[in-house]
Parts: sequence; structure tokens; C-alpha cells
Amino acid sequence: MDFRTEKDTMGTVQVPATAYWGAQTQRSIENFPIAQDINKMPKEIIAAFAYLKKAAAFTNRDAGVLPAEKAELIGKVCDEILAGKLADSFPLVVWQTGSGTQSNMNLNEVIAYRGHVLQGGQLTDEKKALAPNDDVNKSQSSNDTFPTAMHIAAYKILVETTIPGIEKLRDALKARSQEFMHIVKIGRTHFMDATPLTLGQEFSGYVSQLDHGLRAIKNTLAHLSELALGGTAVGTGINTPKNYAVNVAKHIADLTGLPFITAENKFEALAAHDAIVEAHGALKTVAVSLMKIANDIRMLSSGPRAGIGEIDIPDNEPGSSIMPGKVNPTQCEAMTMVAAQVMGNDVAISVGGSMGHFELNVFKPVMIYNFLHSARLIGDVCVSFTDKCAVGIKPLEKNIKKHVDSSLMLVTALNPHIGYYKAAEIAQTAHKNGSTLKETALKLGYVTEEQFNEWLKPEEMVGEMK
Amino acid sequence: MDFRTEKDTMGTVQVPATAYWGAQTQRSIENFPIAQDINKMPKEIIAAFAYLKKAAAFTNRDAGVLPAEKAELIGKVCDEILAGKLADSFPLVVWQTGSGTQSNMNLNEVIAYRGHVLQGGQLTDEKKALAPNDDVNKSQSSNDTFPTAMHIAAYKILVETTIPGIEKLRDALKARSQEFMHIVKIGRTHFMDATPLTLGQEFSGYVSQLDHGLRAIKNTLAHLSELALGGTAVGTGINTPKNYAVNVAKHIADLTGLPFITAENKFEALAAHDAIVEAHGALKTVAVSLMKIANDIRMLSSGPRAGIGEIDIPDNEPGSSIMPGKVNPTQCEAMTMVAAQVMGNDVAISVGGSMGHFELNVFKPVMIYNFLHSARLIGDVCVSFTDKCAVGIKPLEKNIKKHVDSSLMLVTALNPHIGYYKAAEIAQTAHKNGSTLKETALKLGYVTEEQFNEWLKPEEMVGEMK
Amino acid sequence: MDFRTEKDTMGTVQVPATAYWGAQTQRSIENFPIAQDINKMPKEIIAAFAYLKKAAAFTNRDAGVLPAEKAELIGKVCDEILAGKLADSFPLVVWQTGSGTQSNMNLNEVIAYRGHVLQGGQLTDEKKALAPNDDVNKSQSSNDTFPTAMHIAAYKILVETTIPGIEKLRDALKARSQEFMHIVKIGRTHFMDATPLTLGQEFSGYVSQLDHGLRAIKNTLAHLSELALGGTAVGTGINTPKNYAVNVAKHIADLTGLPFITAENKFEALAAHDAIVEAHGALKTVAVSLMKIANDIRMLSSGPRAGIGEIDIPDNEPGSSIMPGKVNPTQCEAMTMVAAQVMGNDVAISVGGSMGHFELNVFKPVMIYNFLHSARLIGDVCVSFTDKCAVGIKPLEKNIKKHVDSSLMLVTALNPHIGYYKAAEIAQTAHKNGSTLKETALKLGYVTEEQFNEWLKPEEMVGEMK
Amino acid sequence: MDFRTEKDTMGTVQVPATAYWGAQTQRSIENFPIAQDINKMPKEIIAAFAYLKKAAAFTNRDAGVLPAEKAELIGKVCDEILAGKLADSFPLVVWQTGSGTQSNMNLNEVIAYRGHVLQGGQLTDEKKALAPNDDVNKSQSSNDTFPTAMHIAAYKILVETTIPGIEKLRDALKARSQEFMHIVKIGRTHFMDATPLTLGQEFSGYVSQLDHGLRAIKNTLAHLSELALGGTAVGTGINTPKNYAVNVAKHIADLTGLPFITAENKFEALAAHDAIVEAHGALKTVAVSLMKIANDIRMLSSGPRAGIGEIDIPDNEPGSSIMPGKVNPTQCEAMTMVAAQVMGNDVAISVGGSMGHFELNVFKPVMIYNFLHSARLIGDVCVSFTDKCAVGIKPLEKNIKKHVDSSLMLVTALNPHIGYYKAAEIAQTAHKNGSTLKETALKLGYVTEEQFNEWLKPEEMVGEMK
Repeated sequence: MDFRTEKDTMGTVQVPATAYWGAQTQRSIENFPIAQDINKMPKEIIAAFAYLKKAAAFTNRDAGVLPAEKAELIGKVCDEILAGKLADSFPLVVWQTGSGTQSNMNLNEVIAYRGHVLQGGQLTDEKKALAPNDDVNKSQSSNDTFPTAMHIAAYKILVETTIPGIEKLRDALKARSQEFMHIVKIGRTHFMDATPLTLGQEFSGYVSQLDHGLRAIKNTLAHLSELALGGTAVGTGINTPKNYAVNVAKHIADLTGLPFITAENKFEALAAHDAIVEAHGALKTVAVSLMKIANDIRMLSSGPRAGIGEIDIPDNEPGSSIMPGKVNPTQCEAMTMVAAQVMGNDVAISVGGSMGHFELNVFKPVMIYNFLHSARLIGDVCVSFTDKCAVGIKPLEKNIKKHVDSSLMLVTALNPHIGYYKAAEIAQTAHKNGSTLKETALKLGYVTEEQFNEWLKPEEMVGEMK
Repeated sequence: MDFRTEKDTMGTVQVPATAYWGAQTQRSIENFPIAQDINKMPKEIIAAFAYLKKAAAFTNRDAGVLPAEKAELIGKVCDEILAGKLADSFPLVVWQTGSGTQSNMNLNEVIAYRGHVLQGGQLTDEKKALAPNDDVNKSQSSNDTFPTAMHIAAYKILVETTIPGIEKLRDALKARSQEFMHIVKIGRTHFMDATPLTLGQEFSGYVSQLDHGLRAIKNTLAHLSELALGGTAVGTGINTPKNYAVNVAKHIADLTGLPFITAENKFEALAAHDAIVEAHGALKTVAVSLMKIANDIRMLSSGPRAGIGEIDIPDNEPGSSIMPGKVNPTQCEAMTMVAAQVMGNDVAISVGGSMGHFELNVFKPVMIYNFLHSARLIGDVCVSFTDKCAVGIKPLEKNIKKHVDSSLMLVTALNPHIGYYKAAEIAQTAHKNGSTLKETALKLGYVTEEQFNEWLKPEEMVGEMK
Repeated sequence: MDFRTEKDTMGTVQVPATAYWGAQTQRSIENFPIAQDINKMPKEIIAAFAYLKKAAAFTNRDAGVLPAEKAELIGKVCDEILAGKLADSFPLVVWQTGSGTQSNMNLNEVIAYRGHVLQGGQLTDEKKALAPNDDVNKSQSSNDTFPTAMHIAAYKILVETTIPGIEKLRDALKARSQEFMHIVKIGRTHFMDATPLTLGQEFSGYVSQLDHGLRAIKNTLAHLSELALGGTAVGTGINTPKNYAVNVAKHIADLTGLPFITAENKFEALAAHDAIVEAHGALKTVAVSLMKIANDIRMLSSGPRAGIGEIDIPDNEPGSSIMPGKVNPTQCEAMTMVAAQVMGNDVAISVGGSMGHFELNVFKPVMIYNFLHSARLIGDVCVSFTDKCAVGIKPLEKNIKKHVDSSLMLVTALNPHIGYYKAAEIAQTAHKNGSTLKETALKLGYVTEEQFNEWLKPEEMVGEMK
Repeated sequence: MDFRTEKDTMGTVQVPATAYWGAQTQRSIENFPIAQDINKMPKEIIAAFAYLKKAAAFTNRDAGVLPAEKAELIGKVCDEILAGKLADSFPLVVWQTGSGTQSNMNLNEVIAYRGHVLQGGQLTDEKKALAPNDDVNKSQSSNDTFPTAMHIAAYKILVETTIPGIEKLRDALKARSQEFMHIVKIGRTHFMDATPLTLGQEFSGYVSQLDHGLRAIKNTLAHLSELALGGTAVGTGINTPKNYAVNVAKHIADLTGLPFITAENKFEALAAHDAIVEAHGALKTVAVSLMKIANDIRMLSSGPRAGIGEIDIPDNEPGSSIMPGKVNPTQCEAMTMVAAQVMGNDVAISVGGSMGHFELNVFKPVMIYNFLHSARLIGDVCVSFTDKCAVGIKPLEKNIKKHVDSSLMLVTALNPHIGYYKAAEIAQTAHKNGSTLKETALKLGYVTEEQFNEWLKPEEMVGEMK
């Protein structure tokens, strides 16, 4: 490979001749050979930086501290980045400095050098149209840009991927719930037969979980909408022009179409990332819901001959390399694996979030890496689960009916008439003898046949159906 | 010990002669000899049950399904429980059935039997004034009472202990922040010297963290305000009178003075406890904040001779059994230990919350045990930390001044005038030579003495102080 | 209450007149009003301290730095503590200083003052027979005593409670496995019907999990056997007589009957508690096993009419306050709740363990609190589960046979004869038509009846039974 | 793109014309559009499958159930895979079926089709030289191959990457420890000044942590060496030739050079992955150690002017985009971020490990994904930290001396001579007056100057140096 020589404040470095990055990016590649093939800085962070670098340039221009041509040039490269044109220019990994300084410098360098090339310059020109630190990074520090990129990336993925994914699943389950609202089935508590409900009621619980989960996520957006930019090195805003913080947040809001504002307190915004911890807490709550829902659906669909077998889910692929004809609840499995991952990611984020010191938390990359991972996984798996499983769920009414009819817990309906103790005696006797409730109830003489038929109707034991 | 014979649907049991509980409580004692000396069902759950049993009795009375005298009698015993008079009557542990059925029955039995005694009866009377299942538990199931008790207990402890504790600490730190607002000190990022800020600004970050944390907790109260009661066995409300769910929630709201309402979806309310997961996520966020704050304060106060030494914290006790005269940041240590515990409790809650099956989550006791533990610990430690540490924090101005004056990072103020590269050269040279910035800057010839004095003023590098 | 005046290096304190503790214990009570009713320092730690204080006194005596009478007196009080006679003398909580200094001083004070009283002195005597720091704490620091107590307590509870509990469960499950070894049943993978195995084979997997878990725990005992004592303040052993560390470990080994040795590196032993982290990792592995086992057993026993229903477990108590006659897998529920708790405790321990600084980890109390909690819970729940559930598990052979006979996955046995594709066609066709494998196989013409009967025998599909 | 038509037991699928995979791989791509750009099945799993497929083919050949030419052909493709030649042929993601069936089929298909092409065939030939299920997967199931691949991949990465990485760091720290053994410095407990030790002693604690950590990891290898292969569908070994399990493990041991053996109990080996949970517990223990070590080193190196400043670490890159000349402990930050990640991964693994049902755990991909991630991160970060930081650590002796000389805790050496109380008075008075210990001790009259000089020598307070 051909190289060119780049330099920074520490000296010179050999950089691949055609790479848009400079010395500091190259140093990071060499200093952090850690999982480089699998843990690149997430592309959502690169995109978020493109928004904020453009916004900073425009704000600097408006404040008269950056020439308009330079600002335009910076904006032009940022647009290229957002269009995905420079994807190879961001080779750094998550496991670098904990402030993300090196990724900030990667952006500064690529924007400066690509801008220079866009203007007709050469990468080997000593003097360039834009300087990474003095122009592209003007009025900024890694310490306020990286947390700003974290919030932009987190907010965007939540509203673009996670929330729509959950809503899609919620809608699909709601449709199933309404479709199944009148199918009376046995309830199960402690995994044991209980009083009946309808299949639609059962599914309505899933819908309600997701509705609450969506609310929980949305409750955390306000904190995420606060941007650190303008705090610069330690939160005081050193080296920023007047009103910079407020104005740059407005530019970011304009560029992204999202309601970003400047953080009221910049010291918190650099030194702690509680907004990420808080928002991921909501993601984890949804993961907990998804675990429950996916578990239920795989158990309800279990069988086909020796399981619960009350619903049928789509057969998407052969299920076994050895057992011919086997079909498995694979979408449920992907979903529960995602849930486990999100529960783990939550701990990584909490540990990182708890260990900021003084003016800076230096677990920024690991925190946002885990956040974006969870947000993406939840969004994607909800879509996959909806398309490949939820929309195709069908009740197996024969089994459903068999189960509810045989249930001993229908006896509960007798409580108000004959009391808990006598009802228990009926159920226990029927269980012991393998007989039906009716036979037993009549034999014990606690009710007449007429009473039994009148009082014990599964379809009247399910309450309101809505 | 003397015993009397009690019976339930499974047969007879020997119960301590003077105990107010009956057969089912006794069976649970015998069946679950698990950590009985350390893990009793939390007293907050017992109290929450007292509220709900009273509310249920009154609602049943209003609906005409329970005689007024019985309702009054139930209410009377519940008042005794709330007054702490029957504390010895609740011997069960967390590690019982996962629905909390046995604790529900413990309450049913104690209320029935104590009620009977209040009426002048004997514990050995075969026929009692109140029946545990048919009267005290009327229109209820463990499956809806226990989650209702969870929400009552959780909501109450948050508003009575946790939130006031955090607010107290927030207020104390805010007072310190204002008091210290004009004390210019060195900033530290990556634990390394950085540009200056004021001690008050540093503390304002802590205040902002707690303000956000309080908002996060409050955001979760709405979900916690939803009560499962009225769902009975599986969420359908079997064996409840008309409008029972709405009315019983009103009674509970009246009795507790808190805005409880009936849960819109009872199936979720029994089968999942996402509200607990969600609310504990907010508690964990606060724990993460507390870890950061307590770490900072212990590090700032480190020394007295060989540490950071920028603040003084109260000496509350001798710190060492071997090193005479040693004083340690013990309140910080209690706080960070609490933070670690809450981070652990969060996982226990998430695991429990994720594993509900069909119509019931059977991790109820472990979930609420951990929740109440965290809520209590955070509330208590914030009070302790405030009283024994935060209120007595004092700046050590001599050290503070020495640190800021010697800092090489003040050079940052020169960036806009001479550029990042020359500024770096000054700082690096000064570091290498152990000289001051000024000496070095002048020697390198990048600024005049006049310029240096004009541009590099720590007190002008700290931005807005508010 | 009556009080007497005590003093320490910081001044005087009022102490309850009859309490054996002194000023420093009292200060801790007053300085840490945090969950005082529920989180006392575990009794296992108090006992461990009694062993080590006695051992230290004897070692000091042998080294000639403590008069024999004093050593005897200290030993006498320690014996009282070990006999449980002074239980009320240890009022401190977990949430104190992170070094456990206050609990060390609590022991020092109680031993000194109780020793004085044993000698006929009064608590109000100015001069006492033993001095807390200079005699009882001689050659010690909190920094080496507390970690020593942690290891003693951890090792003891593992070998006395946890391991025997797991072994008891393992034995009970092994007996079931052997008893059920020839009962052919359907296998389930992905919760779906699969090829057959025997019920005994299924249980043998549980036995193997516990055997491996026991090995995992035992692998961690070596690290736990290393004692910090002799490191004193920072690991250097300042203020200890010659050979003290080795000798005191010998005394502790003698007193406890356990193979304790002095830690090779005292700096680690004070500054990190990786042995606790490592050993709890093994406990968490067992918790993970228990979750699996308990889940399987409750699912296998589910029903009685609409579940899997392949085993019967003992009915220990009425299962529902509303559903008469209901019986639930409550021991499984206690076990899975314990598993969730242990998984949470593991995180608390890891967080605490990761945050030692320089010469001392100050998360000692929270780490050992969680460790002892887990060790106790696992031990207790295994015993409870064994006695109340495992020993009484019975196969429901009728259901078992019905399930295996109806299974479509028996078709797997045809693979080697007709290939995976044709076998799949048989299974899929049978599933679609609700027909049997045999009918379908013959109809499709892929096998003769003779071949089918020869090749497809469930009892020959289960391999070796041992 | 051009496509060809492939089929499986469910019908036909369009596959990219030049892809070596078949219908089932393609279905998985289409059914699981979940994080496809970032979460491919780890390459270590693909390689492990190559070993086991080759071993299975050879074992089948030896047993006479697979023609030698077929076995050779399979082996040839496996060698290509191991040489990295078919990297583009494995497009599946972690978030697929929880048994990893689709990745097993991906391997089966690629080996069969590539083998056919190697023989001169075309991808579009209807009849191929090898059949994915009947030849490549012969005597196997996903249910035993995937766990076998998990153990092979886990064992290999531990011995090839993780352990050597930790050993390298251990060696580097040990060299520093010996180099610094006689540099007396102040100790710090509770982050507060304490009695002295040497810098080499301090580092010896880190060495001891890593030595114990290495032992902990090695303790878990035995469980990982047990292979599931031979259990096939549910653990019974259906459709395997005689002695297959033992023989195939031997082949794998030969091919990998690692001591693999057949698992004693195949039911555990499919239904639970406690070996992964256990081994990752050891990795997490090491992560906890690394967090402590990296924290210490960054704190010791803090400054340069206003921190602890007792060691110097290499300057690898400019530390700040805004603060010129700033250098940060970036290797420490990468390491602590890795530690946070591993602590999170541990929870994902435990959750997955706890939720196996009956004969199969279906969290296999998420478990091994997290395991390999942690193992890789720890190995890589230890190497990076060693090369870029540990080898270049230098003591800052001037600061070290200043700190130790000023310490008040040297007073501890007076305890044995004048008692804890008088020593405390000296330290407290000196602290209050800002005076030295000597001045104060003499002024208080508790020692003569001669005694002070004799008794209080920092270099004699550090005990044994080894």
C-alpha cells in the first residue's frame, strides 16, 4: 500500500495514500488493535457527527468566527457523509479513548481533507482549505461533540427504528386480539389450569405491555433531546461565541427535524450520561415485555401433538437438520435472544454510566455502542416477528375447546353460591377420580344439574371483552 | 409452645395457640424454611395489603355482597395492622409461592381471626365471625391482590421515602453549588488537568443529575398508579360485583391519599409487572448518578496531604482501627455500596419480570422485595449523606488555587489567538521543562507578556455562573 | 433508656447503659440510619470475626506481644459470640464504611468490654481489662480483618450450607433419574415435539448440571482459603510480629477445621476481592442451572388437564385464594425466584469488586452481604425443594405414553433408511392430515408395514440408559 | 443479481447464482433481517464447525456409514473454510433460530455445494456429489453440532487469545513490580493517605489478581472440553453409529490439538450451556480485575500538575481536540470500557443460559456471541494495554517522595510504642495545625526526637519486598 506522511502535535505518521483521514485517526488505528473487525464505531454515530459538524460550521459562520466558504465546504462534506459516500473513511473502533476524541478527530480530519479535495486540492498539499482543529472543530471539544452525537444518534434510532418497530408489533397483536376476542380458552396461572378467558383477552395483555413500553420510551425522549454542544472542554463553553449553544442546537434541530435543545446544564451533559442510562432502562423494560410475549407465543404454539397447541404460527423454514418435518418457533427465539442481549447491554451501560469522574465520563463509546445495539435489535426483531410470525397466528379452536371444557378450575364460578370449601372439595374429588366437575358436583350433592348448568358457563366467566 | 388445630381444604395443621394466623400461613412456614431469619415479606407489603383488604371490604359492602358489620370488622383489623399492632402475625418469607398467595392468605387469616377475637370470640371457636376466603378475600384473588399491594407499596415508598430523600440531597447540593459558584478551580477530564470551571459549576452538574433523576422517577408513577384489583384469578374479574374494579381503586386512593386508578388492562396487570421494571429502571438511573456524585466527592476530598484535596468533608468517626487520626469518606462509601446494590437489584427484577407465563407472573415477591429494598436504600442513604456529609462540605481554597494556577490547560484560551498547534507546543514544552505556561509562551515568542496576561485569565474561562 | 458516656479519639458519645459496645459502634448507629431494620451485618460475619479475633489473640500471645491472660479472656468472649450469646451486641448495618471498620471496632469493643465484665468489672469503669484497639485489635487492621472474615464466612457457608444443599438435591434427582430410567417419553426441543428419550435420561441432565456446578464451586475454594490477615493497614504487615500472618492463618484453620492459609499476596487481598467475585460466579452458574431445572419440572407437571402433565409433584398447600382445589408448583417458584435473586446479587458483587482503589476495596460489606445471601438462598432452597418436591415426583405414565405414541418426530428413525427428504414428506403430510405416521408412510409408499414396525420403535430410539 | 432455484423440504427458493449456500440459508437471510450488517455469526463459530464437520465425516467413514471419497471431499472443503477461503459464504446472523440450526445448515449446504464444484460439478446440477443433510450432516443434529462448535470456539479463543493476552499483561506488570520494588510510596485506603508501601508492592497486587484470574479461567476449561457431538437430536444419539461420540471427539482433539472429550452426559450438553456460563464467570472476574488495575493506573498517572502524579505513562496520541498538549490515559479507558462490556455480556449469557427448556437450550447463538466477544476483547485489550502503556510506565520519584514524606499516617508506626490514642492525638493535631508529625510529636511530648527518628522510618514500614 502507498502511504503519505501526516503530522499532528506529536509528530509524523504514515497514512494510506488515498485515505481521507489524518495523523490522529491513524494513531488510533495503530494504538487500539482491539476487535477491529467487529466493533467499528457505529455508523449512526458517524451520521450524528455529520449533522453536528455541519450545524457547528453554520453557527460559527452566523457568529462571524468562520468564513462562509469554509462553512459551506464543511456542510458539503457532511452531506456526503450523510449520503453514505465516505463509509470507508471511518475505520476506528469502539475501544479507543473513552471520550471518543479519536472519532471526533476522525470526523474533523476527513471533513477537512475531503473538503480540500472537493475544492480541487491534493491530499499531499501541506496547506489545506480546512484545518481539522481550528476550522472543523471550531467552538467544539470532543467532550461536547461526542455526547451530542450520542443523543442525536439515540434519539434518531428510537424514533426511526425502535418505536416504529414496536408499534408495528403492537398493531399486529392488537389485530389478533380483536380477531380472537370471542374465543374462550382456559387460563393458566403458575403454568397450571385456571379459570377461562378469551384468546383475545390474553393477547390484549401483550398489547397493553407494548403500549406501556412505548410510553416509557417516549418519557425518556425529553432528556435525550438535551444537547451538550456548547459546553466544549469542561462544560463552561470556553472558546465559543455568544449564544453558540442555543444556536447550534437550533441548527441541529433543523437539520434532523427533531426537537433538540441545548442542555440546561452542560456540566452534567459531559460528566454523566444518565439520559442514556434512563432511556436504555425503558428499552430494557420493553425487552422484558418481549421476553414474556415471545415465551407465551412459543408455548401456546407448542406441539404439534404433545404440547399446549392452542395457536398455530407460520412455518417459515425447516426446523431441524435431523428431524424431518419439524417446525420451530424461530421468530420467538430470535426475539428472546434479543431480550437477553438487551438485558446484558443494560448492565454494560449502567456500569459505564456510573463511573464518570469529575468533568467527564469516559465510557462514552461503550455506552452508545450498547444503546444503539439494543435500539436496533428491538426495532428489527419486532418487524421480523410481526412479518414472519404475528400476522400469521391462527387459533387451533379444537384444542382450545378441549382444554377449556376439561378444566377443573371452572369450579371457581361456584364459589359465590356454595363457598370456597365445597367448591374445593368438588375440584379435588374430580381430580382424584379423573371425573368431570359436573359428575362430581352432582354426586357430592352440592348443586343440582340445573344449578350447575346455570352457574358454570365458561363463556360467562370471561367478563368484558374489549 | 402450645398449639391449636386449624384446617384448610387440604386437612389439619398445628398452629401456635396464640397466633392469629391459620392453616395456610402455617403450611407456608413449614414448606419454605428458606432464609426465614433475614427475608420476611417486607412490612410495606403487609401495610399495602391492609389498605386493599379494607378497600375491598368497603367496596363489597357498597355492592351489597358483604354485610356492613363484616366490612367494618375487616376495616378495624386493617387499621390495627396499619398502626403496627400485629407485626408478629406476618411470619412468611419472600421465598414462597411466586404469586404471593400465601401472604395474601396470611392477611386473610389474620384479619378473619383477629376480627373474630375483637368481637369477643376465641381463636379456637370453630365458627368465626369472618371467613378468610369467603369474606376477607371476597371479590379477590392472590393474583390481583398481590400486584395491587406491589403497586401501593412501590408508589408509597417512592413518594414517602425515595423522592424526599433525593430532593433533600439535591437541595443540599444546590446550596453548596450556589455557595461555591465563584470559586474557580481546575477542571479534570480523563482524570487529567483540564480547563478551569468553578466549584459551584461542578456541583451544579450533580444537582442537574438529581433533577433529571427525580423527573425520571416521576415519569414512572403513572404506570404504578394502575391497580390490578378487580382482575381476580386471570384478569377477567370473575366473581366480582359490577364496577368493582373502578370502585375499589377509588377506595384505595381515598385511604392512601394517592392517585390510584384501576388498570385499563387487567391481563397485563397480573401477567407482567413492567411497571415495577420500568420504575426500578429509574431508581437504577439515580443509583448511577449517586455513584458518580459520591465518587467525585470522595476523590475531591482525598488526602489530606497526598490526594486531590480540594474540599473538606465532615469527620464523623475515627476511620481506622490501626491508623490513628485517619478520617475516611464513609458516607460516600455507604452511598456507592447502595448504588452497587441497586444495580444488582435491577437485574433480579428484570429477570423476574421477563419470566411471566400466560396469565400470571410468579416472580412477584422477589420483584417487590428488590424494588422496596432499592427504594428504601436510596431514600435512606440520601438523607444520611446529606445530614452527615453534604451539608458540611467546605472548599479548601488554598489547594484549589494552587491547582488552577499551575495548570497547563489554561493554554486552551490561546487557541483562538495563536491556533491549536502553537498552543500545544507551549503546553508540551512547559510540561517537559517543568516550567510555567507564561515563561514558556514568552520564550517561544508566540505571545507578548501583555497578550498573555490579557488572554489567559482563569476567572474568565469559566463562562456563565448560575 | 439509660446511657453511659464512652469516648474515642474524637470525643465522647452516649451509649445505652447496658450495651457491651463503645463509642465507635454507637457513632456508626447514629451516622448510618440506613435500612437498619432489615440489613444488619450478617451473623456469619460476626461469627467469622469471633474466630479471627481469637486466633489473633492466640498468635499475639505466642509471639509474646500479648499477655496470656488477655489472650484467654479474648478467646472466652469469642467463644460466647460463637455460641450465639451476645447476638444483641452487633447492631450495625451493611451500609456503613466500605472497609467494615465499624464492624471490626464493634467486635473490638464488645470483646474488650464483655471481657472486662467477665472478669468482674463494670461497663462504667474507666480502665478496663482489655483495650479495643491496643489489645483486641493488636496486629490487625480493619483492612485485613474484614476481608479475612469475608473469606471465613464465605468458605464456611459454602461447605456447610450451599454445597450440602446442592448435593442433597443432586442425590434426590439422581434417585429419580434411576427410578425413571426406562420410562420412554417424548423429547421436546424448541418446546416442540422431538425424538424420544426416557424420563430418567431427562433427569440425568439435571444431575449432570448439578455435578458440574458443585465442581465449579469447589474450584473456587482455593482462592477463598487465602486469608488477608497479617497485611494490616495496606498489605505490608506493619505492626505485626514475625511470622504472624502464617501463624494466625494456622490458628484460624485449627479453630474452624477448614484449610485456610495466609494469602501469598496481601496487597491483592486488601485491595480486591476477586475470590468473592469468582466464587459467586460459580454460585450464579448453579442458579442458572436451578432456573432450568425448576422451570422444566413445573412445565412437566403442568395441567392437570390442559398442560404437559407428564409428572406429578407433591401437593403441599392450597394453591389459590380464589380457585378452589388448585395446586401449584410452589417449590419451583421459590427456586426460580432464588435464581433471579442470585443473578442480581452477582451484578452487585461485580460492580463492588471492580471499584477498589489503590490499597483498599471499600465495597466489602455489600460484597459479602450479597455473597452470603446467595449462598444461603441456594443451600436453603435446594433443601426445601428436595424435601417438599423432588422426593415426591412421580411419572404420569398414561400421559407420557400418549404423547410419545402420537409423536410425528419418530419419523427421524427412518432417515438412515429412506433419507431426510422422504421422511420429511411423511411427517408433513401426517401433520397436515392429522393422521398417524404409519398410515401416511404406507400411503405414500415409502416403506412397507413390516419395515415401519421394524425401524420405528420408540424404545429403541433412546440409546444407552445409565 | 442473477439467481438460481434451490429447494428444501418446504419448497423452492431463489438463491444468488454464485452463492455456495442453498435454500435453508437463503430462507434464514430472508426471515431474519435483524442487524444483518453488524451481527454476523462469529467467524470463530464457522471455523469450529469446519473442524467438527470434517471430524464427523472421518468418523462416519471409519464407521462405514459414509464413503471415503465423500469424507475426503467434505474434509477438503472444511480445510478451505479454515484457510479463510469461503468467508463470503456465511451470511447468517446471530438473531436466528436459537438452536443455530440455520448456521448448521449453512455449513452443510456450503460444504456440499462447494464440494460438488471442487469435483467439477455446477451449482445448478440437480444431483450433487454431496447431500447437505444425508451426507454432510450425517450422524449429527444442529442440537449437538452447535453446542460442540460453541465449546470448540470458546476453548480455542481462550487458549489462543484470552489467556496469552492476560499472561502478557501479567508479565509486563510483574516486570514493573520488580523494577519498582524498592520505591517507597504512600499507601492509600479509602482514597485517603495511609501507611507506606512500595510501588512494586502495589503492582504486585495487580500481578496476583491476574495470576488468580488465569487460574480461574483454566479451572473452567475442563467443562468446556466436553463435547455434545453424538447426542444428535435430544441427547440419545439417535442415528449415530456405534462409538461415534467417543471417536468424533478424538478426531476433533486431533484436528484442533486441544484435549476435547465426549461429554459424559449429552442431555445436559444440549439442554444447558452451564460450561459457557461458568467460563464466562471467570472472564467476568478478570474484567473486574482489569477495571481495578486500569483505574489505579489512570489515577496514579493523573495530573500532570493537579493530580496524584506518581507514575508516568506513555503519550500515545494527542488527547484533546480543544485542549492543546493534553495527554490522556486512553489505554486505561479502552480497558475499563472492555470491563464494562464484559460485565454486561455476563448478564446476557446468564439470562440465556437459565432459559433452556426440556431437551434444548435455544439461546445458543446469543450465548456464544457474547462469550466470544468478551474473550476477544479481554485478550486484545490486554495486548494493547501492555504494548502501549504497561511497558512504558515510569515512576515519578519526586512526587512519590513528596507524598510519602508529608504523610500523617506514618504515625501508625508509633502505635506499639505509645498506643493508638496518643498516636491519634499527634496525627489529628498535626492535621489541624498543618504541621509535621515530628514537630507535633515532640511538642506534645509523647516521644523524644531520637525515638521519633528511630521508630518512624517509612522505608522500614513496608515489610517484605518480593
